[in-house]
Amino acid sequence: MAAETIADLLGIRYPIIQGGMAWCSGAKLAAAVSMAGGLGVIGGGSMDSDLFAEHIGKLRAATDKPFGVNIPLTFAQAQGLAEVALDEKVPVVFISAGSPARYTTRFKDNGSIVLHVVSTPVQAQKCERAGVDGVVAEGFEAGGHLSHEELTSMVLVTQVADRVSIPVIAAGGIADGRQMAAAFALGAAGVQIGTRFALTKESSAHPDFKRRCLEAGATATLAVLKKLSPMRMLENSFREKLQEAEARGASENELLSMLGEGRPRLGMFAGDLEQGVLEIGQVAGMIDDLPSCAEVIERLVAEYRETCACLPALSQQ
Amino acid sequence: MAAETIADLLGIRYPIIQGGMAWCSGAKLAAAVSMAGGLGVIGGGSMDSDLFAEHIGKLRAATDKPFGVNIPLTFAQAQGLAEVALDEKVPVVFISAGSPARYTTRFKDNGSIVLHVVSTPVQAQKCERAGVDGVVAEGFEAGGHLSHEELTSMVLVTQVADRVSIPVIAAGGIADGRQMAAAFALGAAGVQIGTRFALTKESSAHPDFKRRCLEAGATATLAVLKKLSPMRMLENSFREKLQEAEARGASENELLSMLGEGRPRLGMFAGDLEQGVLEIGQVAGMIDDLPSCAEVIERLVAEYRETCACLPALSQQ
Repeated sequence: MAAETIADLLGIRYPIIQGGMAWCSGAKLAAAVSMAGGLGVIGGGSMDSDLFAEHIGKLRAATDKPFGVNIPLTFAQAQGLAEVALDEKVPVVFISAGSPARYTTRFKDNGSIVLHVVSTPVQAQKCERAGVDGVVAEGFEAGGHLSHEELTSMVLVTQVADRVSIPVIAAGGIADGRQMAAAFALGAAGVQIGTRFALTKESSAHPDFKRRCLEAGATATLAVLKKLSPMRMLENSFREKLQEAEARGASENELLSMLGEGRPRLGMFAGDLEQGVLEIGQVAGMIDDLPSCAEVIERLVAEYRETCACLPALSQQ
Repeated sequence: MAAETIADLLGIRYPIIQGGMAWCSGAKLAAAVSMAGGLGVIGGGSMDSDLFAEHIGKLRAATDKPFGVNIPLTFAQAQGLAEVALDEKVPVVFISAGSPARYTTRFKDNGSIVLHVVSTPVQAQKCERAGVDGVVAEGFEAGGHLSHEELTSMVLVTQVADRVSIPVIAAGGIADGRQMAAAFALGAAGVQIGTRFALTKESSAHPDFKRRCLEAGATATLAVLKKLSPMRMLENSFREKLQEAEARGASENELLSMLGEGRPRLGMFAGDLEQGVLEIGQVAGMIDDLPSCAEVIERLVAEYRETCACLPALSQQ
């Protein structure tokens, strides 16, 4: 599956997809990415149905380029979001965390392209059998919700590419053109980029959250909450409390009660950097500016080309 | 730092280095890799000084090609191994787990090339200041001992390459030519490969351990013992007991006492697949044969070239 094919399938210029992240990816971010030649994606995981519909409307008012939406099936409002996406006949639907059997047929019959997020090769095979158009293979280096299996992009993407014949989009650990070239070498037909787009001018994340991410060193994120649904987040007072609780063997219920409700919103959208949950990928450690989405895509493509041109031939003795 | 440069520096044909793994990498494995055009490495971490000297002698009797040795500084017998490596004027010395200041100058003054294993960009910078000739950047997907920071190869290699001017060798998650191409795209000048060489004809691991690794699925390994020194191992009865203990918050002392002495030997060398520790990388899930080292290198190079030739150009509209 060549990169041209996924770009053709989605109707975009570059095989670069923006991850539909909670609290970062509204109409503004998605429109900027789509207008720059990638696929912008509205992250439904932090919206109710009305707000979701509003953002889809705003995006359509801003550009006639293709776009996508992300619906995490574990999200309490997933069904409402799905109904909106069906009504709106959204061009591309990304489904994460849940069974591919639930909505694939309905969306496809409705004219949408359906992509499903997976974290193991077996999940990818299930998705292919369910009829999805492609899978997003997301490695352990990604931000936010992760799987218990902890397969990294380097290991996951190759194995998913070996097991399915539909296009594979690599996600997790991709912030520059070198990592994008690596993803294609591993067998990806496209890349999904979260953190790098979360840290742009057009991202709707709180400015203080963005600033904290720019200051973060290489080792500032860690996957915690492994007894529940593991989540990669930036170090802060709240994460430290979670880690202390985990070290003494805190139960699932205790961890759930510590987590409570609304901490991702508190951290990423309201800017409470110590009591909020700050979801971000490992690549935050290598990002130190807040460019526009158009600049991000321009850099990615230029670095990608330079990287490919400089790969050593190895000796032919 | 081009790949040709690291091959030139080490005097080898291909920039492919075999990881010096405990219980797998004696003279037989190292000689096979060196004779096939890579750099064979004797793993000192499972040997006393006499056995280490014996393996160096056997390797030299088998081939006059360059080779290396690995010395983990946390290993109780590290000092004895270092004295042997100094006496033997070993061409290349890999130091893992410990301060680069301890032996770098002595080995360099003695004529050896010194490479140090790192798991963060900051460690790489310390190594460069200590005068090492290059660093091995090892990601979280690798087998055996890992760091607490959990940086994956995709994220680690680029950042190490950005921070140091000495050559960077990528390790962790590299079992085929696609992953090797990915490593070079990320900025590596060479690759260090463990698991793929552990699962070869010439590896000294127990046949039952090798067979269990071939049967392993993509999600069969996990990093455990995070309160001590994290270690990636294959699922078995012993790992299950460790995970249960960790889930209830077992103390460091309790975990140390469960681990006891000699479990890696028991599992990987004596073939007790349930009570031993089975150290292996995430890539075990994609390996299903036991070729010779020469075949491994031939495949890696062929796949690497094919991968580089097939990278998409991206559109130039």
